[in-house]
Amino acid sequence: MADSANRGDLAVHLPSANDVLAEAIRRGGGRLAPLDEAEALVWSDGGVAEFPRSLPDHIRWVQLPSAGVESWFGAGVIDRERLWTSAAGAYARTVAEHAVALLLAGVRALPVALPLRTWQGKQVAPFVGTLAGATVAIVGAGGIGRAMIPQLHAFGARVIAVNRSGREVPGAEATYPADEVARVWPKADHVIVAAPATDATKHLVDAEVLRALKPTSWVINIARGSLIDNAALVAALEQGAIGGAALDVTDPEPLPDGHPLWAQPKAIITPHVANPDRVLGPALADHVAENVRRRVAGEQLNSVIDVDAGY
Amino acid sequence: MADSANRGDLAVHLPSANDVLAEAIRRGGGRLAPLDEAEALVWSDGGVAEFPRSLPDHIRWVQLPSAGVESWFGAGVIDRERLWTSAAGAYARTVAEHAVALLLAGVRALPVALPLRTWQGKQVAPFVGTLAGATVAIVGAGGIGRAMIPQLHAFGARVIAVNRSGREVPGAEATYPADEVARVWPKADHVIVAAPATDATKHLVDAEVLRALKPTSWVINIARGSLIDNAALVAALEQGAIGGAALDVTDPEPLPDGHPLWAQPKAIITPHVANPDRVLGPALADHVAENVRRRVAGEQLNSVIDVDAGY
Repeated sequence: MADSANRGDLAVHLPSANDVLAEAIRRGGGRLAPLDEAEALVWSDGGVAEFPRSLPDHIRWVQLPSAGVESWFGAGVIDRERLWTSAAGAYARTVAEHAVALLLAGVRALPVALPLRTWQGKQVAPFVGTLAGATVAIVGAGGIGRAMIPQLHAFGARVIAVNRSGREVPGAEATYPADEVARVWPKADHVIVAAPATDATKHLVDAEVLRALKPTSWVINIARGSLIDNAALVAALEQGAIGGAALDVTDPEPLPDGHPLWAQPKAIITPHVANPDRVLGPALADHVAENVRRRVAGEQLNSVIDVDAGY
Repeated sequence: MADSANRGDLAVHLPSANDVLAEAIRRGGGRLAPLDEAEALVWSDGGVAEFPRSLPDHIRWVQLPSAGVESWFGAGVIDRERLWTSAAGAYARTVAEHAVALLLAGVRALPVALPLRTWQGKQVAPFVGTLAGATVAIVGAGGIGRAMIPQLHAFGARVIAVNRSGREVPGAEATYPADEVARVWPKADHVIVAAPATDATKHLVDAEVLRALKPTSWVINIARGSLIDNAALVAALEQGAIGGAALDVTDPEPLPDGHPLWAQPKAIITPHVANPDRVLGPALADHVAENVRRRVAGEQLNSVIDVDAGY
């Protein structure tokens, strides 16, 4: 699928000054070149509106900066004349880090401790738990979900995975297919939702699921707000039916002022910041360096866009 | 040092009903027995005040529940007639988990996000960082500090260690002796203090150290409050000289009401709860199971108390 590459001398055009990406291109074995001499284009200068309407024929590979490329297809930018790669997967580990940070914050009772302005050991200690020996269910074990597994193992947690097929996820103690997800809830000490938003996953975590969890269970969502029934979650938090919920995504999003979730003392809400600019840059750079290296070596690139499939 | 053991049939007395410890004793290959038939005593029924004034001669090994045993020596409980073991080291991983949870909470800007009652992505995102590629200095790489290393590696962080001798700590990129600690600060993105409290470590983190750190650096203390110069820390937080501080221990402790640290928005204070009862139980059980297993197998026990050294 990839064109043959000029080993050790890949001329890459980087439209604007970006030290981190320039270093990544060199690290991968490429060199920076003006557009009219380049065979590859690494684009990080805005969205589809800023992208050139046409490219010289000698540009054989374009690296786009986003994980989802619907808007690039919609604008008719992606063609069959050359190879295109996205940043799909580049941000999996940083989003996973946010999910595990939220889970640890909950398990370690930071929402109880942080608002205090007085030393209350006896008030906080009963809410402090540990991931050691705990079973964490990762519902949706794609790139992000899989990236969490070694992070959770490092604290001595066990992982149960759920994916569409039920095909074994490396590192998980057990993997269940999505249609048997009901078997997972009673085994789980905590749940991290990392599935795509589809009709089938809407309100995947509903009142019945929340009833099956423990009064110490934390529910984490870094995927899409629609995966959790918000009204049922508020009710579970009000009743103390679960330990708490930590959400980087909500439904609706942004969560409106005055929404009852804002008032829950055991809710942690971060405003969709699992992968913000400061974190994104280095992650994209690593992705670019690896793809340049692969191109130079004549290997298959990561995250090749399939023009027929549209992603 | 250890007496020879009766393989497969270690009779252990557990004074009160404790399902978790009973299971641990059986898991290690022991069986529960009344005091007058037992050769070992696993004590978890309070402190030194509750401990029996004398023990039958046939009790050859006593497992105490605490990591520090100064008070047990002080009361004259520990004798030379039999083998005594403490719980030193049993709680290293859970305290390490608390430290890494605090660091992640800081790096992921939870102190910024948690107090908000409105969706403010642009206000929070600039403060969100990542451990991926960050260098974390662990100052005091004993059992607790070492237990953090695989936890930090799981997020892609690099570790620099500091210990008294400078002898290489496995998993650390570099290890510095305590008298060269000044070389560590400029290399560190974040600092975790895990050293014992001694005259030499008092105010180890002072105004000069805080000046050498970055405006995004988090300082974590799970060891003893005296290791950080509190006045200098408050000044650094007020000036935005560091990213923030997360403290499970303070100086003085408890931190008095109205202390300026309480008012710092980038300070996370947990009231000495890194190792509370709910977390301690399972960790002690694992320690007991392992020592019972070793005793049954005739191996050297963990955390043997040295009567001459007094710990």
